[in-house]
Amino acid sequence: MDELLIWILPVFGIIGLGYMLYLARWVKAQDAGNDRMKKIAAYVQEGAMAFLKAEYRMLAIFVVIAGAALGWISYAVDTTHWLIIVAFVIGAVFSAIAGNIGMRIATDANVRTAEAARTSLPKALKVSFTGGTVMGLGVAGLAVFGLSIIFAILAASWVTEPSNQFYGQMTMVLETLAGFSLGAESIALFARVGGGIYTKAADVGADLVGKVEAGIPEDDPRNPATIADNVGDNVGDVAGMGADLFGSYVATMLAAMVLGNYAINAYHVNSDADLTAFQGMGPILLPVLIAGLGIIFSIIGTLFIRIKDNSAKERQVQGALNMGNWSAIILTGIASYFVIDWMLPEKLYLTAIEVKLNGIDYSDVGASFTSARVFIAVVIGLVVGGLISFLTEYYTGLGKRPVMNIIKNSSTGAATNIIAGLSTGMMSTFLPIILFALAIWGAYAAAGFYGISLAASAMMATTAMQLAIDAFGPIADNAGGIAEMSELPKEVRERTDILDSVGNTTAAIGKGFAIASAALTALALFAAYVTFTGIDGINIFKAPVLAMLFIGGMIPVVFSAMAMSSVGKAAMAMVKEVRRQFKEIKGIMEGKNEPEYGKCVEISTDAALREMMLPGILTIITPIIVGFLPMLFGYSAKDCAEMLGAYMAGVTVSGVLWAIFQNNAGGAWDNAKKSFEAGVKIDGKMTYKGSDAHKAAVTGDTVGDPFKDTSGPSMNILIKLTCLVGLVVAPLLGEGHSTEEHAEPVIEETEGGENEGEETTSEEGETSSVESEEPTFSWIS
Amino acid sequence: MDELLIWILPVFGIIGLGYMLYLARWVKAQDAGNDRMKKIAAYVQEGAMAFLKAEYRMLAIFVVIAGAALGWISYAVDTTHWLIIVAFVIGAVFSAIAGNIGMRIATDANVRTAEAARTSLPKALKVSFTGGTVMGLGVAGLAVFGLSIIFAILAASWVTEPSNQFYGQMTMVLETLAGFSLGAESIALFARVGGGIYTKAADVGADLVGKVEAGIPEDDPRNPATIADNVGDNVGDVAGMGADLFGSYVATMLAAMVLGNYAINAYHVNSDADLTAFQGMGPILLPVLIAGLGIIFSIIGTLFIRIKDNSAKERQVQGALNMGNWSAIILTGIASYFVIDWMLPEKLYLTAIEVKLNGIDYSDVGASFTSARVFIAVVIGLVVGGLISFLTEYYTGLGKRPVMNIIKNSSTGAATNIIAGLSTGMMSTFLPIILFALAIWGAYAAAGFYGISLAASAMMATTAMQLAIDAFGPIADNAGGIAEMSELPKEVRERTDILDSVGNTTAAIGKGFAIASAALTALALFAAYVTFTGIDGINIFKAPVLAMLFIGGMIPVVFSAMAMSSVGKAAMAMVKEVRRQFKEIKGIMEGKNEPEYGKCVEISTDAALREMMLPGILTIITPIIVGFLPMLFGYSAKDCAEMLGAYMAGVTVSGVLWAIFQNNAGGAWDNAKKSFEAGVKIDGKMTYKGSDAHKAAVTGDTVGDPFKDTSGPSMNILIKLTCLVGLVVAPLLGEGHSTEEHAEPVIEETEGGENEGEETTSEEGETSSVESEEPTFSWIS
Repeated sequence: MDELLIWILPVFGIIGLGYMLYLARWVKAQDAGNDRMKKIAAYVQEGAMAFLKAEYRMLAIFVVIAGAALGWISYAVDTTHWLIIVAFVIGAVFSAIAGNIGMRIATDANVRTAEAARTSLPKALKVSFTGGTVMGLGVAGLAVFGLSIIFAILAASWVTEPSNQFYGQMTMVLETLAGFSLGAESIALFARVGGGIYTKAADVGADLVGKVEAGIPEDDPRNPATIADNVGDNVGDVAGMGADLFGSYVATMLAAMVLGNYAINAYHVNSDADLTAFQGMGPILLPVLIAGLGIIFSIIGTLFIRIKDNSAKERQVQGALNMGNWSAIILTGIASYFVIDWMLPEKLYLTAIEVKLNGIDYSDVGASFTSARVFIAVVIGLVVGGLISFLTEYYTGLGKRPVMNIIKNSSTGAATNIIAGLSTGMMSTFLPIILFALAIWGAYAAAGFYGISLAASAMMATTAMQLAIDAFGPIADNAGGIAEMSELPKEVRERTDILDSVGNTTAAIGKGFAIASAALTALALFAAYVTFTGIDGINIFKAPVLAMLFIGGMIPVVFSAMAMSSVGKAAMAMVKEVRRQFKEIKGIMEGKNEPEYGKCVEISTDAALREMMLPGILTIITPIIVGFLPMLFGYSAKDCAEMLGAYMAGVTVSGVLWAIFQNNAGGAWDNAKKSFEAGVKIDGKMTYKGSDAHKAAVTGDTVGDPFKDTSGPSMNILIKLTCLVGLVVAPLLGEGHSTEEHAEPVIEETEGGENEGEETTSEEGETSSVESEEPTFSWIS
Repeated sequence: MDELLIWILPVFGIIGLGYMLYLARWVKAQDAGNDRMKKIAAYVQEGAMAFLKAEYRMLAIFVVIAGAALGWISYAVDTTHWLIIVAFVIGAVFSAIAGNIGMRIATDANVRTAEAARTSLPKALKVSFTGGTVMGLGVAGLAVFGLSIIFAILAASWVTEPSNQFYGQMTMVLETLAGFSLGAESIALFARVGGGIYTKAADVGADLVGKVEAGIPEDDPRNPATIADNVGDNVGDVAGMGADLFGSYVATMLAAMVLGNYAINAYHVNSDADLTAFQGMGPILLPVLIAGLGIIFSIIGTLFIRIKDNSAKERQVQGALNMGNWSAIILTGIASYFVIDWMLPEKLYLTAIEVKLNGIDYSDVGASFTSARVFIAVVIGLVVGGLISFLTEYYTGLGKRPVMNIIKNSSTGAATNIIAGLSTGMMSTFLPIILFALAIWGAYAAAGFYGISLAASAMMATTAMQLAIDAFGPIADNAGGIAEMSELPKEVRERTDILDSVGNTTAAIGKGFAIASAALTALALFAAYVTFTGIDGINIFKAPVLAMLFIGGMIPVVFSAMAMSSVGKAAMAMVKEVRRQFKEIKGIMEGKNEPEYGKCVEISTDAALREMMLPGILTIITPIIVGFLPMLFGYSAKDCAEMLGAYMAGVTVSGVLWAIFQNNAGGAWDNAKKSFEAGVKIDGKMTYKGSDAHKAAVTGDTVGDPFKDTSGPSMNILIKLTCLVGLVVAPLLGEGHSTEEHAEPVIEETEGGENEGEETTSEEGETSSVESEEPTFSWIS
C-alpha cells in the first residue's frame, strides 16, 4: 500500500470533483423560477462571465510574461527545470477553472435559492449551501488533484529512491511544483484585488446615486448599477475568496512538502537507519494525504448541515452550519493522529546538521522530536484556526461589545463613529497576534518548522467545508437581490434575509480563517525559502537586512492605500455613468425603459482590471528588486537572500496586522449599521433607521467597505505571493542547491540513479557504504 | 586641550542655559497687555501648572517604583552600579524642569505676543519666537549639561585610561548613564501621551458643545472648556513635544556613546596602536561635542530669524524661519567635518572581533573605515532629516496634491473624505520609509552602527533650533486665543493668524523631524542593545524570535487604539461637564456670569492622568515580559536577549509606520478643513465654510485630531522607550558583560587602575605589553 500512496493521492481530488459534479447537476435540476427571475439571473451570469473573460484575457498576457521569466530562471539555475513553466501554467489554469466553477454555480444557485425560498426555508438553505459546497469541492478537488498528480509524475521520473541524491532530486521536483503554486496565487491576486475593486466600485456607485440621490431602494431594477452590484458579489466574494483559498491550500501543501523533504534529509544525517517506507518520502506525502482526507471529511460534514423547521431562525441555521464544520474539523484531527503514526518514523530531527548549525545552537528546542509531537502541532493548527475565527466573530458580531460601542459612538456623529471603528479594528489585533505568536512558538517547539507547516496544513485541510459555508452567504444575498428585483412575495425575502444574516457571520469567520491560513502559509513558505536558499538564518542586526525589514513592513500599507484609492476612482466613474443614464434614458424611473446594465458592468470590469495592475506589479516586482538590486552594489547572493528573507518577514508581520485591522474594522462598522435596522438602544432610547445616529453609522460602513472587501482581504494574497515569489527565486540566491554537491544534471542520470537507489535500499549495500564515508557532508544541502 | 574636553562639554550646556535665562528675562520684561488679557493669561498659566503639578505627583510615585526596580537590577548585575537610580531620578527631574520651563515661557509669551501684535507683526514674531527659543535652549541645555556632567564625573571616577579594563569600566559608566536617559524618556511618555489626551479631550469637548451645540465661536470666553483648550495647547504641543525631543536628544547621544565605546574596543582589537588622545575616549565624546556645538549654532541661527516689514505675509515669515534653521544645520554639518577629523583616529574598525564574528562574515561591508566616512554618515543624517521633514510638509501642506485630493473627495460626503485621508496617510509611508531604509543602509555602509548613531546625533544636534521653531506655533496660536477672548482689535488677530498659519506648517515639519529622530534613535539604541547583551545577532528564522517580531509589530497598533479610545472617553466627560455648566450656571451665555473654567481643567487633567496609565504600563512592562517570561520555559538568557531584540525591531518598524500614517493623515485632514476658510475650487465651483463639503471636512479633521495629536506622536515615545527599557535590562540578558573578563568589582581598583592607565599611555610600557599577550581575548566583551 505505502508504495502506491503517491498514486492514490490524486484519487482524493477526483472523488471531490466527482461528488462536486453530482451536486452541481442537482442544483441545475432545481427550478429556476419565472421568466423575470431567469432573465435577471441571466444578466448577472452574463456580467460575471464577461468579467471573467476580460480577466482571463489579461491574465493570458501575464502568464506569458511570467512564464518567460520562469524560463530564464530555469535556464540560469541547474536545479530548476523548464517544466516549472508548465507547472505554472497548469496552476494558473486550474485556479481559473476553480473560479469559473464557483461563479457558474453561484449564479446558477442564487436564482434557484430564490425560487426554493418560495417553498420553504429548509429547501432554500439546501440549494444555497449545496451551491457553496460545489464551490468548495471544486477548489479543494482541483488543488489536491493538480498538485498530487504533477508531484507523482515528476517524482516518479526524477527521484531515485533513498539515495544520497534524494534531497537534491526532490528539491528539483518541489521547485518545479512551486511553479504550480505561483500560478495559482497569481490568479488569486487578480481575482481578489480585481474582484475587490469591482464589487466595491459597483456597490458604492449603486448606493451613492441610487439610494442617496434618486431615493430608490437597494437592488431596485431601475438602478443601472444594480446588476453590476450583484455581479460584484460573485466576482469578489465568491471567485475572489475561492481563488484566495485555492492559493493558500496549494501553497500550504507545497511548503509542508518542502519542509518534509528537509526533515527527510535531517533524518538521514542524524539517524543510522534509512527511511524506506512510502518510497522514503513519507514526510512529504503526509500533508497531501491530510488534505485529501480533509475533502472526504468535508463531504461527510456537509451531510450534517440541514434544518427541518420552516420557521427556523438564524440561530438554528448557524447551529446546523457549526455542526457540519466542527464534525469535519474533529474528524480530520482524529484521522491525522493515525495518519501521522502510520507515515512518519518514530523519531525526527530538527536540522540537517546535528544540533549546531553554523555556530547557532538549536539544542534548546530539542534536536529531535517524536512523531507524536507532530500531532501536537496539528492540534495547535486546528485550535488556533478555530480561535482566530471565533475572535473575528467577537470583534465584528452583532450585539457584541465592540459593535455596541461603535453604535453608542454613532450618536455623537460620524467622526466619533469612525474613531470608534478604527480603534476597534486596531484593538482587535491584540489577541489574534498573541494567539498567532503562541501558535508559531508552540508548533515549532513541538516539531520545528515542519510542525508549523503541518499546523497550517491541518487548518487548511477542511478548506472545502470552509468555502462551502463561506460561499453560501453571497448566494443567499444574491437570491435576496433577485427576489427583490423580481418582486417576489415578502416571505421569500424574509427567508433569504435569514440566510443572508447567517451568511454575514460566516463571512466574518471565513475572513478570519483566510487571514490565519494566509499567515501560517506565509510562515511555512518563509521557512521553505530559508531551506531552499541554504542560508543560516536571517540576522536583522545587519543594517541592510534591517532596512529590508522596514521596506517589507511598508508594502502592505502602501498596497492598502492603492486598493482604497482605486475603489474611490472606480466608484466615481460608476457614479457618473449612473447619473448619465438617469438623465439621458427617459422612462427609467417609471419602469418604462430598461437601464443599460451592460454599460455599468463594463465600467466596473474595466476599472477593476486597470486598477489592479499597479498593486499587482508592486507585489510581484518588489521582492525581485529587493533580492537582486543589492547585487549591483557588491552584496553577495547570500546577503541578498538574507535581505529578501527580512523583506518577506516584514511583509508578513505588517500584512497580517493590516489584514486583521482592516477586516475587523470594516466588519464591525457593517454590523453597527445593520443593527439600526432592528433598532438599537442608545443611552436608554431606542434608535432606528433614518436617525442621525444611523446616518453616522452609514458613513462608517461606507468607509469600512473597501477596508473589509478590497484592501483587507488583499493582504492575504500579498503576503503569500511575496513569499512564493521569494521561494521561486530562492535558487538564484543564497548558496542555492546548484553548488558542488548537486551540480550534476540529475535527470540524465535517472537510470543510473535508480540502480544506485535500489542498491541503497538494501541498507548494507556497497554503494551506500561508500557514500556514507562522509555522511554528514553528502546529505547536507 | 583634548584632556580637558570631557570637562568642557558641560560648558556648552551652561552657555545654552545662560542665554536662555537672558532671553526669558527679555520676554518677561515685555508688556503683558491690559488687565483682561493678564487675567486670561493667568487662568491658562494656572491650568497648565495645575496639570504639571498633578502629573509630577503621579510621576513621583512612578519614579519610586521604577527606582526600586533599577535598584534590583543594579544588585543583580555586577556591572550595573546603584548610581543608576540617581541618574534615573536626575534624568526624570531634568526632563520635568525642561517641561516646566517650556510651559512657563509659553504661557508668559502668549499674552505678550498678543500685546506685541497690537504694535506690529515683526514685534509679535520676535516675542513668540523668542519664547520658542527659550524652550529650545532649555531642553538642549539641560540635556547636554546633565548628560555630560554625569558622564564626566563617573568616567573620572571609574575609568582607568587606556587599559584592558577600559571597555568594561566604560560600559558600567554608560549603563549608569542609561538610567538618565530612561528617566528622561519616562517623563516624556507621560508628557506626550497624557498631554495628547489632555489637549484633544479639551479641544473636542469645547468644539462639540460650544461650536456645534451652542453655536458660539472658537476661543469664546463663554465656553467653560475654552481655558482647558488653551491649556491643552501648552500641555500637548509645548511640554509634550519638548519632553519628546529631550528624550530623543539624550537617548541618541547615549546610544552613540555606547557604540563609540564599542568602536574603541574594536580599535584596540584590530589595531596595534592605542588610542591615547582625549583620554582614549574620542569616539565616545564626539556625539556630545557635536550636540554642544549644535547649541551654539542654533543660537547663531536664531539671530537670522527676523522680519522687517509689518505687512509681511506667511511666505516671508516662513522664509525667515527656514533661513535660521538651515544656517544652523549647515554650520553644524561643516563643524562636524573638522570635529570628526580632530577627534577620531584615521582608521576605525567595524567589529571587536576581526572580520568574522561568531561565524558571521562582516567583511562584505568593510571591516575598517576611515574617519572621513563617519562624516558621510553625518551628512546622511542631516540630509535624511531634512528630506523627511520636507516630505511631511508635502503630504500635509496646504495647496499640495494630497490635501487637494481630500478636499475634492469632501464634495461627496464624509465617507469619501475619510477614505481619501486614510489612504493619503497610508501612501505617505512609502517615500519616508524608502529614505529611511537608504539612511540605515548608507550610514551603516559608511561607518557601521556607529555611523548610524552619529547620523542620528547630527540630526538631533540642532534640536534647540527645531524646538524653537516648533514651539513658536502654539505660542502664536494661544496669542490669537487670548486676543479673541480679550476682544482685541481685528488686526491683532490677523497678525497672530499669520504666525499661527506658519506655525501649522512648522508643526508638521516638526512632527516629521520628531518621527525621523525617534526612529534613528531607536535604531541606535537597538544597536547599543545588541552590543550590551553580547549576542551575535538576531536571527528571525528561529520561531520564538519570529513570534516576538509579530508581538512587537502588534504593540504600536494596540497602543494607538488605547490612546484613541482614551481621547473619546475623556472628551465625553468634558462634553457632559460643559453641558452641565450651560444648564446650571445662569447668565453664562449673556456674559453676565463666568463659567467655572477650573472644573473643565480638572476633568482634562484627571482624565489624561488616568488614561495614560494603561498605555504607559503596556510600553514599559511588555519588553520586560518578553525578555524574562521565556526563561520560565527553559530558554537561555541569550535566547531571551534575541527574542527581546526581535520585539524591539517589531515595535520600531511598526511604530514608525503607524507614526507616519497617523501624523500625516491627521495633518492632511486638518489642512483640508482649513482650506475651506479661504475657499476652495471643487469641480470648478468655489466652495466655502458652511458648505456640505466643509462639514465633511470637519468630520475628517475630528477623526484626524487624536491621530495627529495623541496616538501618532505617542509612537515616538513608544519606540524609544521600548528600546531604552531593553537597553537597561540588557545586562541581565545575553552573555552580558558580567562574565569572566570583567567580573572584578572595578571601582575598588580605581587607584591601582589609574597607575596602570598611566603606564599604558607610554604605549610601549611593560604593563601594556603583558596584557597584550592575548589582545583579542582581553579586549573582547
